[in-house]
Amino acid sequence: MTPLAAIAGRAYLQRNRELVDRLLDEYCPPVTEEPRSLHEAMRYSLMASGKRIRPILCLAAYEFCAGETASLPDGVKKAMAALEMVHTYSLIHDDLPCMDDDDLRRGVPTCHKKFGEALAVLAGDALHVVAFELMAQTGSVQAVLELTTAVGTSGMLGGQVADIEAEERQVSRAEVVNIHTRKTGALIRGSVRIGALLANASDRELSRLTSYGEKIGLAFQIIDDILDIEGDQRILGKKVGSDCKNQKATYPGAVGLDRARGDAARLVDESLSLFPESGDNILKYLARFIGQREN
Amino acid sequence: MTPLAAIAGRAYLQRNRELVDRLLDEYCPPVTEEPRSLHEAMRYSLMASGKRIRPILCLAAYEFCAGETASLPDGVKKAMAALEMVHTYSLIHDDLPCMDDDDLRRGVPTCHKKFGEALAVLAGDALHVVAFELMAQTGSVQAVLELTTAVGTSGMLGGQVADIEAEERQVSRAEVVNIHTRKTGALIRGSVRIGALLANASDRELSRLTSYGEKIGLAFQIIDDILDIEGDQRILGKKVGSDCKNQKATYPGAVGLDRARGDAARLVDESLSLFPESGDNILKYLARFIGQREN
Repeated sequence: MTPLAAIAGRAYLQRNRELVDRLLDEYCPPVTEEPRSLHEAMRYSLMASGKRIRPILCLAAYEFCAGETASLPDGVKKAMAALEMVHTYSLIHDDLPCMDDDDLRRGVPTCHKKFGEALAVLAGDALHVVAFELMAQTGSVQAVLELTTAVGTSGMLGGQVADIEAEERQVSRAEVVNIHTRKTGALIRGSVRIGALLANASDRELSRLTSYGEKIGLAFQIIDDILDIEGDQRILGKKVGSDCKNQKATYPGAVGLDRARGDAARLVDESLSLFPESGDNILKYLARFIGQREN
Repeated sequence: MTPLAAIAGRAYLQRNRELVDRLLDEYCPPVTEEPRSLHEAMRYSLMASGKRIRPILCLAAYEFCAGETASLPDGVKKAMAALEMVHTYSLIHDDLPCMDDDDLRRGVPTCHKKFGEALAVLAGDALHVVAFELMAQTGSVQAVLELTTAVGTSGMLGGQVADIEAEERQVSRAEVVNIHTRKTGALIRGSVRIGALLANASDRELSRLTSYGEKIGLAFQIIDDILDIEGDQRILGKKVGSDCKNQKATYPGAVGLDRARGDAARLVDESLSLFPESGDNILKYLARFIGQREN
């Protein structure tokens, strides 16, 4: 990647994180409206700083297929916000005492620490609903179905269950790949596919972008596991060592840290090689960003 | 209502409860598929006997607008199953220790009592997703949006929050009506409206059925409150006295038992008077059934 492309990539990421923050603020019900406490809890978790990588991948996939347009269609904006909302709902429920029992997330106390468990369960449920509302407002039934596939029992929720059931025992690499592909990979894959679908991508493009999403989705979670071991809590915004404490199945746990790093790098390289015809592009930048991220 | 109409009504209810049970079995992922434990928990709560009143109201509204057809369209079947799934998800989360902390539901231990809290949270989330998947498979974006309105923060979830926040204090009739209209009424209203929408009802019919849904929705929850005071646990399938124990805002608590009974009866009568042109019909039977139910 040329230095100029890296600068352009960083600017893209920064600009669109700000866009996502604005969209979330616009589409999440305001705290001035009843039920205020629920809206406050939803916004608390949603507006805490996040990488916003899922909506940005959706946007990048859309622009890759449709070309950059003067103004972004409302449907794409709504899909972007929906993806971040559904991700945030999963974090809120995942952090609950009966699940991973985490106190810190995105640099602030977790939703249940701040608002109590009942409101945290309901805030997660409510973000889940608003996500489907926004996705339906794209007008695309296919986009709604893509989201249900990503977060349903064969996707994210199935991965969360497998993750819980793999605790406290030694698991194989194949098993961790299976967990990670569903728990984290499915929503990242779905984000990319929804962007492509909203751009009316051809089957060939959709298939290529699906492979891209699968590769960077798995790489993302491998890096997550590595950062949980050797990351910096101040940069991460969540406690490190949580996986070890909870005796989670992790990729480095299955194959060791060195091979984990190597496999993540290989997945990123494979995702780059899906675009042999083009020079630098934003999808490539985002893949590299995922491979090198520190939070 | 003539004795013949009452017999026909009971048969309709019985026949379509069996239909709903078959649809839920068909559309809920099987326990032979991974994640088995999650699918088992979903099915446990879903297949425990229920009144199935929401899907049956959806069906009755559809048939009222479209006429009875030789074979029911798949979209209507899917919407019916979706409504029961979304209702069951709300019961599972509502029963959690951090919420109402109930041990018994539909005559069997609650989901978290049987499977633990983590799996209960996830089973609720998963039923929520499958509900949206089925609703999207009707092909009607409008039906999906109707469901999000019914269960979102201005509907069911908002009502649950208001319900929690009203605990342990005296509330006015207006406040209880507001809570009940959202907590229970919104999904019953939505069930009726979705049936009408799938039948391409005219604006006039949709508006009339919306009034019907609102009236019987509120009546349903008033009766629920009354049954929690003087119902039979063996018939109800859940513990009585739960509202009192949890110091919930109830309609009889606000206005007394006698007036509560009178107001429920009046709401049922008003719902019947919305159909002055027809003799007995199933919607009228269902309204009376809601007014007289013992579980």
